Amino acid sequence: LAESKIQTLTEEERAHLLPLLRSAQWVETVGRDAIYKEFIFKDFNQAFGFMSRVALKAEKIDHHPEWFNVYNKVQITLSTHECGGLSQRDITLATFIDQASLM
Amino acid sequence: LAESKIQTLTEEERAHLLPLLRSAQWVETVGRDAIYKEFIFKDFNQAFGFMSRVALKAEKIDHHPEWFNVYNKVQITLSTHECGGLSQRDITLATFIDQASLM
Repeated sequence: LAESKIQTLTEEERAHLLPLLRSAQWVETVGRDAIYKEFIFKDFNQAFGFMSRVALKAEKIDHHPEWFNVYNKVQITLSTHECGGLSQRDITLATFIDQASLM
Repeated sequence: LAESKIQTLTEEERAHLLPLLRSAQWVETVGRDAIYKEFIFKDFNQAFGFMSRVALKAEKIDHHPEWFNVYNKVQITLSTHECGGLSQRDITLATFIDQASLM
């Protein structure tokens, strides 16, 4: 029942939230209602430490990233499968991801 | 000095090793001297648990995968940056990855 409540962001929410995300270097994905950001760390230890923090959060909120990693680089795409686009869950996870990248 | 010793697999090594990798569902990447395999797990917990085991091994042997994950799916490409193609390190990591996927 809770899953069926997930809705894509309204136009009003987008007008408010997307500029904030853009200012944090998240970009809107072409041809898909999703956001993307690349993170570069010092090395693999730092990159995978970051991924581990995000993974724990993702499990906790039951919302998971699509991500690619090679050595010190992590590329993340966020979108919500259940509603086929951006939802509040992506904003929550994006905010946490930005915090985790600074730890 | 140790880094400069990494060499791509010889033709003889390939003739021996590639059939073994193919039988374990690793495929050779088109247009690049690399191998690729997709793993499907029960859920994100299992997938990221697997990734964590591989990450620890990767740090230990200083050889890292290129990998993509979304929820229960992990797609891995192995190649050796230092020599621009497949080396013994990729075989070592592929063997560990297959073992880790069964844990």
